[in-house]
Amino acid sequence: MSKKTNVTNRKTIHIEWGDCDPAQIVYFPRYFAYFDACTAGLFKKAGLPKRQMLKTYGIVGIPLVDVRASFIAPSRFSDTVVVESEITEWRRSSFCVHHRLFNKGVLAVECFEIRVWAAISERDPDRIESKPVPREVIERFSATGDHRPDHPMSRRKKR
Amino acid sequence: MSKKTNVTNRKTIHIEWGDCDPAQIVYFPRYFAYFDACTAGLFKKAGLPKRQMLKTYGIVGIPLVDVRASFIAPSRFSDTVVVESEITEWRRSSFCVHHRLFNKGVLAVECFEIRVWAAISERDPDRIESKPVPREVIERFSATGDHRPDHPMSRRKKR
Amino acid sequence: MSKKTNVTNRKTIHIEWGDCDPAQIVYFPRYFAYFDACTAGLFKKAGLPKRQMLKTYGIVGIPLVDVRASFIAPSRFSDTVVVESEITEWRRSSFCVHHRLFNKGVLAVECFEIRVWAAISERDPDRIESKPVPREVIERFSATGDHRPDHPMSRRKKR
Amino acid sequence: MSKKTNVTNRKTIHIEWGDCDPAQIVYFPRYFAYFDACTAGLFKKAGLPKRQMLKTYGIVGIPLVDVRASFIAPSRFSDTVVVESEITEWRRSSFCVHHRLFNKGVLAVECFEIRVWAAISERDPDRIESKPVPREVIERFSATGDHRPDHPMSRRKKR
Repeated sequence: MSKKTNVTNRKTIHIEWGDCDPAQIVYFPRYFAYFDACTAGLFKKAGLPKRQMLKTYGIVGIPLVDVRASFIAPSRFSDTVVVESEITEWRRSSFCVHHRLFNKGVLAVECFEIRVWAAISERDPDRIESKPVPREVIERFSATGDHRPDHPMSRRKKR
Repeated sequence: MSKKTNVTNRKTIHIEWGDCDPAQIVYFPRYFAYFDACTAGLFKKAGLPKRQMLKTYGIVGIPLVDVRASFIAPSRFSDTVVVESEITEWRRSSFCVHHRLFNKGVLAVECFEIRVWAAISERDPDRIESKPVPREVIERFSATGDHRPDHPMSRRKKR
Repeated sequence: MSKKTNVTNRKTIHIEWGDCDPAQIVYFPRYFAYFDACTAGLFKKAGLPKRQMLKTYGIVGIPLVDVRASFIAPSRFSDTVVVESEITEWRRSSFCVHHRLFNKGVLAVECFEIRVWAAISERDPDRIESKPVPREVIERFSATGDHRPDHPMSRRKKR
Repeated sequence: MSKKTNVTNRKTIHIEWGDCDPAQIVYFPRYFAYFDACTAGLFKKAGLPKRQMLKTYGIVGIPLVDVRASFIAPSRFSDTVVVESEITEWRRSSFCVHHRLFNKGVLAVECFEIRVWAAISERDPDRIESKPVPREVIERFSATGDHRPDHPMSRRKKR
């Protein structure tokens, strides 16, 4: 059920004053807001902007069930950082996202999310339940072609 | 170097509209802001309100180096939840905090933080570095008396 | 169409580390989150907790159309402040809320909100439109005595 | 003491899921975080990135003393908006910023900030006080050359 995917998203983030705390470094919950936006950016890159994706597939979101992060080095307001994100595994109704935030080229934060494909329960409209991730969604992330311009080796193998 | 502590903090949190996202459930980075406030509440309960603690010990904060959370059930605006927090381990210059958020008595979110006791570097004022946690800080969490009503075994040993 | 109301809400807020910015004072957008929670608290005090209110009246929220705030004195993490809130005017489909935040008894922030009673448009589900505020909602705020919406005697006096 | 300035900043903002509330529209305090970043962007465009500006001039920030905003139309996650910002007036130790947020070319939010040039008080390190805005800072916003391509008349008058 596991499958290595190919789409990687790179998002440049300018650290704002309001993202920082009295120690003058990024207030750590803000990193999770960054990563949440990066996951959305990853789906957008795969052709699935979030609002349209929710409509198309009748889901309410892709909420987290588990998250882990390591804060290796602090970042400060006026810094510009880059986050590289990719889906590392698709399960039946959940998937794993890996984010790496780089500041001046050095890995500063690493985050691992497990998210579910979630819809309103058909039996109880006050409940949210996971649903199988549609095959066509997964395929958008593993498509060959223009998504892997920088892997000449793997392209060669395919011939 | 490990040491089980006794002070537990219970914080009641009213989930606000602004803490929730378009799926009408708590936006997960907000949980980390809750937990950050719970850690501050835990130190306050041990007699160390944050602003005073930073001044007294010359630190800039107690930033995270690692965090893990499991989101077991969603919570919604107008819900009132309770978070129980305790320090589960003291290391030389870091410590582990465990938070459990209960909604209607059921465990809804669990979080494990590792934080460092951090000061401005003496060599480079633009850097933050960890320092040993003062013994008197640790002792505030392990005091005998009304802090350990639920450990009859350990009380017995003290006689 | 104007009407002075009686219900006043007082909310005690502990200023958290994460509400403050690198200048070590409350990051001003956080005040608006406080005030938003205070408006919700005001409705709750009038017997209308937000989630239930939205369901009962079929609205999506009470979004702002206009807001003004004056920041008179800064507040810092570990401060405890009190916000007094009241509705100062009811219009056809909107209303005015006045918040005053006190720190150590001194007025530190003042805010004036104009909010609308808002529902999903019947013609276009992607639009939100204002609707007349139900009379019974307004009456909950204008009961005589400080909390007696359910006292027929006081209603009789009004005739 | 008033002076019309010329530097205008345009910032493109992608509305994120986490910026929206259960009504599925931007949670209004988030607009103020956007505008705060836009003011920082405006200074950066004038050659004053915030962190460096604070160091150079020995200030702790440019906090608000007054703000007004009108919310004309809601914006939603996955929308891309543009904010145009400019300083409309310089006073002795404060200045006025005007932000206009456009969604699909239509004015959706308008905001007027009054901010102060603020430093730690020399008499009391726990206090923040306003200081005169340095002339060279103001001049960066009214510099001749590429900053005022559309006001040749005002340049001529200055001679």
